[in-house]
Order: sequence, then C-alpha cells, then structure tokens
Amino acid sequence: MAGYQTNLRLTLPLTCVILEVILIILFAVLVEYDHETDAKLWHKHLLQHNDSNYNNDFYYRYPSFQDVHVMIFVGFGFLMTFLQRYGFSSVAFNFLIAAFALQWATLMQGFFHGMHGGKIHIGVESMINADFCTGSVLISFGALLGKTSPVQLLLMAVFEVTLFATNEYILLSILQAKDAGGSMTIHTFGAYFGLVVARVLYRPQLDKSKHKNCSVYHSDLFAMIGTIYLWMFWPSFNSAITAHGDDQHRTVMNTYYSLAACTLATFAMSSLVGPGGKLDMVHIQNAALAGGVAVGTAGEMMLTPFGSMAVGFLAGTISTLGYKFLSPVMEKKLKIQDTCGVHNLHGMPGILGAVVGAVTASLATREVYGDGSVLALRRLSPRRVYVSVCVQHVSLTSRLSSSMEDVFPEIYAGNFSASEQGVRQAISLAVTLGMALVGGVIVGFILKLPIYSGPPDTICFEDAIYWEVPGEMESQEELGTVMSEEVQKPLNS
Amino acid sequence: MAGYQTNLRLTLPLTCVILEVILIILFAVLVEYDHETDAKLWHKHLLQHNDSNYNNDFYYRYPSFQDVHVMIFVGFGFLMTFLQRYGFSSVAFNFLIAAFALQWATLMQGFFHGMHGGKIHIGVESMINADFCTGSVLISFGALLGKTSPVQLLLMAVFEVTLFATNEYILLSILQAKDAGGSMTIHTFGAYFGLVVARVLYRPQLDKSKHKNCSVYHSDLFAMIGTIYLWMFWPSFNSAITAHGDDQHRTVMNTYYSLAACTLATFAMSSLVGPGGKLDMVHIQNAALAGGVAVGTAGEMMLTPFGSMAVGFLAGTISTLGYKFLSPVMEKKLKIQDTCGVHNLHGMPGILGAVVGAVTASLATREVYGDGSVLALRRLSPRRVYVSVCVQHVSLTSRLSSSMEDVFPEIYAGNFSASEQGVRQAISLAVTLGMALVGGVIVGFILKLPIYSGPPDTICFEDAIYWEVPGEMESQEELGTVMSEEVQKPLNS
Amino acid sequence: MAGYQTNLRLTLPLTCVILEVILIILFAVLVEYDHETDAKLWHKHLLQHNDSNYNNDFYYRYPSFQDVHVMIFVGFGFLMTFLQRYGFSSVAFNFLIAAFALQWATLMQGFFHGMHGGKIHIGVESMINADFCTGSVLISFGALLGKTSPVQLLLMAVFEVTLFATNEYILLSILQAKDAGGSMTIHTFGAYFGLVVARVLYRPQLDKSKHKNCSVYHSDLFAMIGTIYLWMFWPSFNSAITAHGDDQHRTVMNTYYSLAACTLATFAMSSLVGPGGKLDMVHIQNAALAGGVAVGTAGEMMLTPFGSMAVGFLAGTISTLGYKFLSPVMEKKLKIQDTCGVHNLHGMPGILGAVVGAVTASLATREVYGDGSVLALRRLSPRRVYVSVCVQHVSLTSRLSSSMEDVFPEIYAGNFSASEQGVRQAISLAVTLGMALVGGVIVGFILKLPIYSGPPDTICFEDAIYWEVPGEMESQEELGTVMSEEVQKPLNS
Repeated sequence: MAGYQTNLRLTLPLTCVILEVILIILFAVLVEYDHETDAKLWHKHLLQHNDSNYNNDFYYRYPSFQDVHVMIFVGFGFLMTFLQRYGFSSVAFNFLIAAFALQWATLMQGFFHGMHGGKIHIGVESMINADFCTGSVLISFGALLGKTSPVQLLLMAVFEVTLFATNEYILLSILQAKDAGGSMTIHTFGAYFGLVVARVLYRPQLDKSKHKNCSVYHSDLFAMIGTIYLWMFWPSFNSAITAHGDDQHRTVMNTYYSLAACTLATFAMSSLVGPGGKLDMVHIQNAALAGGVAVGTAGEMMLTPFGSMAVGFLAGTISTLGYKFLSPVMEKKLKIQDTCGVHNLHGMPGILGAVVGAVTASLATREVYGDGSVLALRRLSPRRVYVSVCVQHVSLTSRLSSSMEDVFPEIYAGNFSASEQGVRQAISLAVTLGMALVGGVIVGFILKLPIYSGPPDTICFEDAIYWEVPGEMESQEELGTVMSEEVQKPLNS
Repeated sequence: MAGYQTNLRLTLPLTCVILEVILIILFAVLVEYDHETDAKLWHKHLLQHNDSNYNNDFYYRYPSFQDVHVMIFVGFGFLMTFLQRYGFSSVAFNFLIAAFALQWATLMQGFFHGMHGGKIHIGVESMINADFCTGSVLISFGALLGKTSPVQLLLMAVFEVTLFATNEYILLSILQAKDAGGSMTIHTFGAYFGLVVARVLYRPQLDKSKHKNCSVYHSDLFAMIGTIYLWMFWPSFNSAITAHGDDQHRTVMNTYYSLAACTLATFAMSSLVGPGGKLDMVHIQNAALAGGVAVGTAGEMMLTPFGSMAVGFLAGTISTLGYKFLSPVMEKKLKIQDTCGVHNLHGMPGILGAVVGAVTASLATREVYGDGSVLALRRLSPRRVYVSVCVQHVSLTSRLSSSMEDVFPEIYAGNFSASEQGVRQAISLAVTLGMALVGGVIVGFILKLPIYSGPPDTICFEDAIYWEVPGEMESQEELGTVMSEEVQKPLNS
Repeated sequence: MAGYQTNLRLTLPLTCVILEVILIILFAVLVEYDHETDAKLWHKHLLQHNDSNYNNDFYYRYPSFQDVHVMIFVGFGFLMTFLQRYGFSSVAFNFLIAAFALQWATLMQGFFHGMHGGKIHIGVESMINADFCTGSVLISFGALLGKTSPVQLLLMAVFEVTLFATNEYILLSILQAKDAGGSMTIHTFGAYFGLVVARVLYRPQLDKSKHKNCSVYHSDLFAMIGTIYLWMFWPSFNSAITAHGDDQHRTVMNTYYSLAACTLATFAMSSLVGPGGKLDMVHIQNAALAGGVAVGTAGEMMLTPFGSMAVGFLAGTISTLGYKFLSPVMEKKLKIQDTCGVHNLHGMPGILGAVVGAVTASLATREVYGDGSVLALRRLSPRRVYVSVCVQHVSLTSRLSSSMEDVFPEIYAGNFSASEQGVRQAISLAVTLGMALVGGVIVGFILKLPIYSGPPDTICFEDAIYWEVPGEMESQEELGTVMSEEVQKPLNS
C-alpha cells in the first residue's frame, strides 16, 4: 500500500459530477414518462378505455415501492452501522451509491426491458426495478464494507448494475425463468459478485484494523433499526412486481410466514452455538432475514403457508450456522474477507431460494393454479359480455387470465411443461453464479488499481479517513457540574 | 433464587424448535390460503363476479397492515429500549415473541373465527388480527421487562394468545360487542394480564438491580423512535379492520385528533408535576400515546372530532398522573413491579376507552348513522339496477348497507337497542378484566417455576446475562491520537 | 437577559391547556366530518352515485398522508437531534408543536378553504394540508433550535399557522398559482419567517453556549434517521395533494429523480470544499434534501425526468455551498443565528423551486399536457355514453378532464395564457417573501418579551434546562467487573 493517498477531494467530486452529467444527458436523450405518468398519454388512455384515474397503476404499486425504498435506504443503510467507527460511512455511502445506482439502473434495465420508439419509458414499475437492482449493489457493498472508498463503490456500481441488467435479461426474457423477489437476480448475484470482488481485493494485513472491525453497544442498536425494517417490509419486496390480485397477496403471506419461522430458528441456533448459550447480535441482525431471501423465487407460487415456514426455518438455520462456522473458514482458507457476512445472509439463502423455486415450479399443475377458461366467458350472456367489454376493460383483462398465466405464462401457453420450467429455473441459478463470478473477477481487478482513494490496511473500518468526525459527548460529570451551577440556580429561585 | 442457573443453551433452542415444529405441522394440516390469496379460488371469484384484480382486499388492507406491523416490531420494540443496559433484549425479545405469537395467533383466532371445511383460511385480514393479538402479548411483556427470560416470554405468549382469542371470541361473537381498535381486547386485556403475572412473579429484592432500572441519554432517544412510530401509525391500528369506506376514514381521523390533544395534555401535566417544571421523558414516551388507546373502541363510531379530542386530552392527563403518582404506590402497596408502566399507558386508558365506547354506542341513532335504505334501490330504473347488478357487484354490496349496519349490525338488524349495545359493551369490559385477572394468576404461577433460565434479582435489567455484549467505543482521545498519526499524514501530503 | 427565569411549570401547562381547550371548543362549534368520513353522508353518496366504498378518497390519499406524517414527526424531529445535548428537546418539542399546529391548521385552513354552511369539513385531504402547514412551522423551528422555550414555540405556531393559511389563500385562491409541494407556501415562507424571527431574537452572547452547538458521533447518526426518512418520502410529500392519476404518478417520479441527482451533487460539493477532501455530515444531512424542495412547485408539471435531475443537481450544489460559505457570513454580518441552516435547505432551494415553477408554467402547451376533448366523448355511441354515465361516474369525471385542467385549470379554461400563469407564479414568490418578512418581524418582537421561560445565552442548546436528564451509561470497566462476577459464575457452573 505504498502508493496510498486519500486524494478524495480530487476523485470524489470528479466521479460524482461526471457520472451525474452523463446520467442527465442520457436521460434527456433517452427517457420519457410512460403512458401512466405522461399528462397527454394517460388522458388519452382514459378516453380510449373509458378508464378511471383510480386505476392508474400508481395506486397499486406505490405503497410497495415505498416499502422497498425504505429497505434500500434505511434497511441496508442502518444494518451496516453495526461497526463502532464506520456509522457515517455505512449509512452515507449506502445513500450515495443507492442514489447513483437507481438512476443508472433505470437506463440499463430500460435498454433490456425494451425501448419504445427509441425511448425508455419510466413509471412506478421501473422505479421498483431500479431499487431492486440497487439492492444487489448494496449486498456487494456489504462484503466490502470498511475497506473501500466511495469512488471505488461508485465505480463498482457502474459495472455491477450493467451486469445485473444483463443477467436479469438472460434469466427473465431469454430463459423465461421466474424470480419476482430476486433470490437469484438480486441476492445470489449480489452476494457472489461482492464476495469475488472481496477476494480480489484481499488485504493480507487487515488484522491491523481488527480492533475496529466490531460493534459497540449503541452501534448494534442502530443496526437493529435496519434489521427490523428489512424484516417487516420484505413481504412488500418480494411482492412488489408480481401480478396484481392473488399473486401479490399470496407472495406477501408466504414471505411473512417464512420470516416468522426463520426468526425462531435463528434464536434457537444462535443460543445453541453461543458460549454459555448466549445470543449473538450478529445472528439476530442478519440470519433472521434469510427467510425473506429464501422465498424470493417461490414466494409468488403456491408454496403453501407451511411450505414457506419450512423454507424459512431452514434458511435461518443455515444462515446462523454459516456466521458461526463458515465465515471464519472462508476468511482463513479462501481469503474472502466478508465484512457483513453476505454469504450467510444473501449467498446461501439465495441459492436455497433458487432451488426451492425450481422445485416448486416443476410441481405446478393446472389443478392448483386454475385454468383461466375462455369457455367460462361464453357462459355469460352476449349482452353481459358486451357491457363488460365496453365498460370494464380492467376486469376483462383479469377474466381472460388465470393465475397460471400470471405466475407461469409459458406453462399456461403450453410452451413448457412444469418440469421444463423447473429445469430453466435451475439453469438460471447456474448462469447467475457464472455471471457473478466472472464479472466479480474483472471488476475486482479494475477496483484494485491504486487510484481510488482507498484506505490502507491499518485504517480500515474508520470514518475519520473520509469524514470530519465530531468529538464524543463531554463527560457527564463535567456537564453535571456546569449544569448544577447554571441551571439549578434560576430554577430554585 | 437458590435454584438459579441460566441454562439458556438448553431451554431456548428446545423451546423455539419444538414450538416452530408444532406450528409447521399444524399449519400443514389446518391452514389454507383464503379465496383472495389462493390462485384458483381468486380467479374463480373473478370470473363468477366479473370482478377486477384491483378489488382484491389486499389493496385496501395491506398499507394499514404494514403500519400495524411497524408498530408491533419498531414501535413496541424500540419503546422498550429506554433501559440503559437492556436494549438488545428489549428489541430482540420483542422480535422473537412477536414472530412466534403472530403464527400461533393465526391458528387460535382461526379456530374461533370459524373454520371452512375443517380449514383455517388466511389472508391480509388474518395477518392484521394476528398482529393485534401479538400487540396484547407485547403489552404484557412491558410489565415484565428486564425480569424474565425469553423462554418465560415464549411460554407466556402460548397461553396469552390462547386466552386472548377466547376473550375476543366471547366479546365480538357472543356478546356482539364492538372493539375495532382493541381498547378492551388488546389494551385492557394485555395490561391487566401482564400486571397480574408481574404480581405473581414479584421480586422482593429487585432493588438490588435498581441502578440499571433507568435510562441513559441515548437510550431515551432510541425509545422515542418507538414512541413516534406508535403515535403516527395509531390511526392505522384503530382503523385496520373496520369496514371499508367512511368507517376506516372516520376511525383514522378520530384517532389522529385524540392523539394530538393527548400530546398537549401530556406536556402540560408532565411539566406541572415535574421538579421545577421540568419535563420527564417517561411521560412523553408513554402518556402521549394514551389517546390512541382511549379511542380504540369508539374510534369507528360517530364520536365527532371534538369528542375525540376531549377523550384524548383526558387520557393523556390520567396517564401522566398515573406515572407520577400511581405507579410508585402500586409497587409499594400492591407489589406490582410494572417496568414500563403499562397500567398507565394501556390499563387505565383501555378502561377509559371501553367506557367511552359503551357510552357512544348507547347514543347511536339512525339519524346520525344513516339508514341504508333498500327503498332507495327501488327508485332506480329496473334497467339500471340490472346493469349495476351484473356489472358492478362491489358497489351493489355497499348500496345495500348503511353505516349503521357496518358499525352496529345488531342495532341495524333491530336485534338490539342502542342502550342494549352499550350494556353489552360494559359487560365486555367486565369479562375482559375477569379473563385477564384469572388467566394472569394461572399463567403467573406456571412462569414462576424455576426452570426457565430467568435472571436473579441482582442482575435484572441487564443484557449481559443473555447476550454477548460488545465493549463501548474506545475513548475519543485514544482514537484521536491514533487518527492524528495515521490519517493526517497522508492527507497533508 | 436579566429578567430571566425558567418558570416553565407555570407557563407551559397554562399555554398547553388554554390552547387545547380553545381548540376543543372551536372544533365543537365549527368542525364536521366531510361527506367521505361521515356515516350518513357517505352512504347517501354511495346510493346517489352508485359508487363503491373502494372509491372513498381515503384509499388514494392515506398512504401518502402517512408518508408525510412520518416526515413531520420522524423526519423533522430526528433531523434536529444532531446537537449533542438537545436531542430530547429537538424530537419532543417538534412533537409538541406539530401536535398543536396540525389542530390549529385544520381550523385556519378550513376558514380559508371555504366553509360549508358555517362548518369546516375535514377528511384525509384536510389532514394532509394540516401536516403541510405544520411543516412550515417546523422549518422556522429549525432556525431557532436550542434558543427558544416550548412556550415561545407554541406561540410562534399560533401566529405562523395563521399567516401561512392567509398566504396560502392569497397564492392558491386569489393569484391562482400552483404550488402542490409547497416550494413557496411551505419552504420559502417557513424559512424566511424563521430567519427573520431569529434575527429579531438575536443573542449577542450566544458564543457562550458555542461548545454545545455541535454534534457528537451518535447524535449525527440519529439525525441521519431524520434525513433518510425525509429523502425517501419526499416524493409522497410533493404528490400528496396533486390530482389523481398521472399527476400524482409524475410528481413522484420528478421528485425521486431530483433527489437522486441532488445527492450526488451534495457529496461532490461537500468533498470539494471540505478540509483534505473530507465529507461533512451537516451537508449530507441537509443539502441532499434540497432537491425535494426545489421541485415542490414544478414537480406536478411536465418537468421531464432530466429536467428534474438538473434542478436537483443545482439545488444540492447551492445548498452545500450555502452551508459552507453563506451561513457564517449571515451570522456575522446579518446577525442571523440559523441553527439548522434552514436558509440553505429551505430558503434558497425554495426560491429556486418557485422560479423553476414559474418558468415551467410559462412553457405549458396543449401539445404537452393534452387537450381533454369533449369531442372524443361524442365519438362514443350514445348507448355507451349512457351506460358509462349512469354506471361509472368516476371515470366520467376523468373523461371530461385533461391533465391541463388538472395542472393548470385557468389555462385550460382559457382565462390565462401560459406566460400569465408564469407571471402569477413569480408574483406569488414575492408575496410569500413579503408575508414572511413582515410577519416574522412582528412575531419576533412578540416572542422577545421576557415572559416565556426562554434560556439565557449561557445555556442554550441544552436539554437540562427543560428536562430531567438521566446520567450516562456506567463506564464499561465498572459494569464489566460487576458482570464478570455476577454473570460469569452461574454460566460457568
């Protein structure tokens, strides 16, 4: 680390300004409001379909979006404040790279999701997708926490968002896999990408900063703010872009029960493996969330409540044991310094989620998902059909679909069998792992260049290198004395 | 406390695993998605009723559910972090017992709310009800905070959820009482149940832990996170399961104004009784919420905005005075060690809420609530009725009801007079108190057995007995020196 | 400050009780549920319009309201906890004056927004408007933070709410200006009003409390809770009362992109002007929010995504530079002691927002906003129109409007040209500044009277003057020793 210098004043403003200017130019050239956001197009739609403002998708997606937004900025941000002297960087670099990534993701996902006359159309759904992609970058950030400069993180976001969008396109559009809550696209990808980058950026002398790589009492409480918000809103995360109606409703319930079971497993395992049966905050803060990750793919499917609970219980168990036994081995043997243990929270539970998704998909039947029958429509009187068609296009849409079409459109259309869907899910997991590993190596080496104001091994996990850090509170005795003189007098008078 | 030992490594994993396995088995046997969550049933519903996915109740309950969820996990969890050395336990045991209780409540409430062909049907409404029941357990937890092990708390939840569901069934189904926000079922029941358990578990030597039974500066700020979230989302709590339309809208407004008035009363009383007019954080953290409790029954009724404000003002006054004058007496004379003062926040305001509900119900008239007239329908042309019936079943439902039917179905149906409804409300309060007292005594003695890894009197209110607690932050001077050597050098270069 | 005494026990209870009693009486005389909240009126509406409970505006405004509510109580409250010894006062006085202001604002805005038969009608929209007005008071509070008693703040709220409602009436009803997110009515007004009051209340000897007018490590983290919530929910703030459909959807997106760009600008500028390129938490906590302020007027217009980003980038830049260079000058030369720097977060970005709004309005065309054509209706068959009219009044409303009518009703109606709308927007800014300056001077002198229990210059920024402040946590060594004796023994046994 001879060439080390924190030339942040040069690199950070330059990086931020260049990236934002590029974003603004690309948005000017390429981005338009979609038909539900644009003044003219929406009112044209209202007229043509005799629709109501109340049916703007905004009302059916925005509450979920805000829950996801809270997870990204408060959830991830505060979860990482557990380090005693890295709270400013945790919450604020999380803030910075998320603010960048969501803009860049809008563009990259827009390219892949299909242009409209050369333009990317944006609305509440693109906002949710951008936040999802951002989540993946923040997972990778978790593996690197304390050891990277904001410039490195922004640069990583540039590449990771691009790779994320590519992988997502391959999975969802080419392989026709299902992954509404992102067990594969978000969690597995983000975790293994970050782990590989951490491996490439291996710091042999990191133990010189070891005394700062731990929590203090209050920093653990701040981290619990992040944990609890992630836990509460995970049902919204997994359901945010599933089909309307039973799909969103069911995804929410599956995630809710998976997380509840996961929490009991986490407490059980943490106490079982702790010294003297004592619980470890690291497990509670992280492993209790694994249940959300593990139903990210299958959550929208007919997983059943008890199935969700079983998956959650398994995820909490694996994750806690991973923190206790696997992480130390990975650091020693594989030289992967995974600050937040993202392998245990996102990596293994993500793979579990992908497998559960593949199995659940391969078991899909028309008996369970229903068969949206056009015949049913015929049983209506022609008169009623006419009224319905001309008056209520919304319910018409739903009438012509089945839940099978919503969850597994290709099985519904007869293009795949259920077992083929399962195979494609499994292939998707393999593709995701491959993209993460190859991408991580390349990006890792780019980030290794000594030009990004990274910290030396001796002062990792330390805010003071990037921040003007205030002092601690004056000691109570000191204040107490001052107070007793200043305050008490007038009060007693 | 001779037989004391914290054999948590044995008892906690065993309790968690056994309970969760039982839950998973019972869910497998007994629980099904309801018709709005199940893939096949919802699409069948769509077809039969020509309905729209946008009318899935998910969209009209889930935002309220998430607000309630935040209250349960962030609100209750952080409110209890005020103790200086019990923050981990407060927020994490709250997390653990809530995650268990919501699963168990799904089953117990499912039994009582009616099985469907031997199955319990679950959806967003059952999720809200389960969170409500959980809230009651957490109120009892508040009375026991710092003096019980997580094993005791889980066991208490097993029994309390069962009793809650029984009491709720008696009140809502047998007595036909109204209690949408749970002044009786949640607050009165939870508070008095917890107080009786605390009485049975009385610790004569608790003053040996007295120095830890208080807050520090930052722990009080963490507690304010809980307070503010409870305060903000209480309107969602009280309205979460009221009828759609004016009922939810009105309940929200009544709660909002009651809380606002309650806050001013709390500040006034706190300053009035404080030494030198100084405010006390305990009052602000707790008594400012009593306004939400006190309109838990009457909130959905035509209480009027100024009526809500008067009730809230009274609740804040009673609650603050209770903290100042009643709690010390209860501890000394009645031997009830009520850590969080739940008697002041949930007990007395809950009874007040029950009384206000009884009075408001007994004053209900058809002039005020309207008279959902089927005659009105007849005034429509037959043609229009036909179109309406076949096209818009949703509005049809609403057209045939009145708000009287929504709020007081038995008065609407002519089965009760308004004053009989009021009497039934009053009986419900008595039943609730009886259930809480008897149940609390029994459960208290069960929890008194010395096998649950409870803390000795000398180390109550202390995380270190159950947690691996990290050290405090290194002193600033120490870090400052290191920093000035390590960091300043490269920056100046 | 010779006549100084903190006679809070007298003044605070008296002020709170008198204000609340007046509020309750005025509510009893003047306030009624509106037709969507009242039991009878809503069911009458359902019958007459064949409407559905699901169309109650509650479902389309309440999620936004709750986001705004979080901003007011958590966002503003915690943002101000950055001071090391003023956390209790920051979050709790914010709580107190907001609880009062929202009740008072309901009345004052009710007067101006139009009485219904001598009554003020309230519902979810009046709740949002009251929270908005409250926000303005809290902005002024930011300028005075640490230097005023709760009695002074309540009194300020009485006057400021009245002036706010007057100014809002002049702008929105008389001048027909547009200002959905309140760049002018909320931010510019609140900031300059507060700054003028701060000027009148100038404390020449405030440097005696200088050592407390700064943050400590954990207080900065608490403040970030406020920042992040404000940042996340600002899209809900700006869109909370815009027209349904594309308007709300578009406002959300514009605000979201403006904030994202603003965040990158803030990090860039903070590092650029910081010593050694180090970031300053004050900038991140505050300036990153300026993008929300700056699109408060134009957010609902067709600002385009890249336009929003450009405005946000500019706002973040101006705001950060203001904190660094302008605030010290204002304190030294203009004698304005602006504790939170509201001039940089709300003042300048508010003016920027007003200007952007005026320019965007003056560029409005029917090509961009669409022309809600009644002709289009004629192209429908009479039959279909009849069915539509009698069955679906909601969509009818939307069909007869255009987005031009929603955003610029006067331009739509042909009463104004676009450039005249722009001129009226500019006049509105001038009126707002005038009202704030004149009002601030008068209210400042009222608050200068030495009868409100204000703190002396020597103990500003200090909770202990108004609060019973607990001690700090016992030192770790001390606790550690106790623990090792008490806890370890049984665990090892």
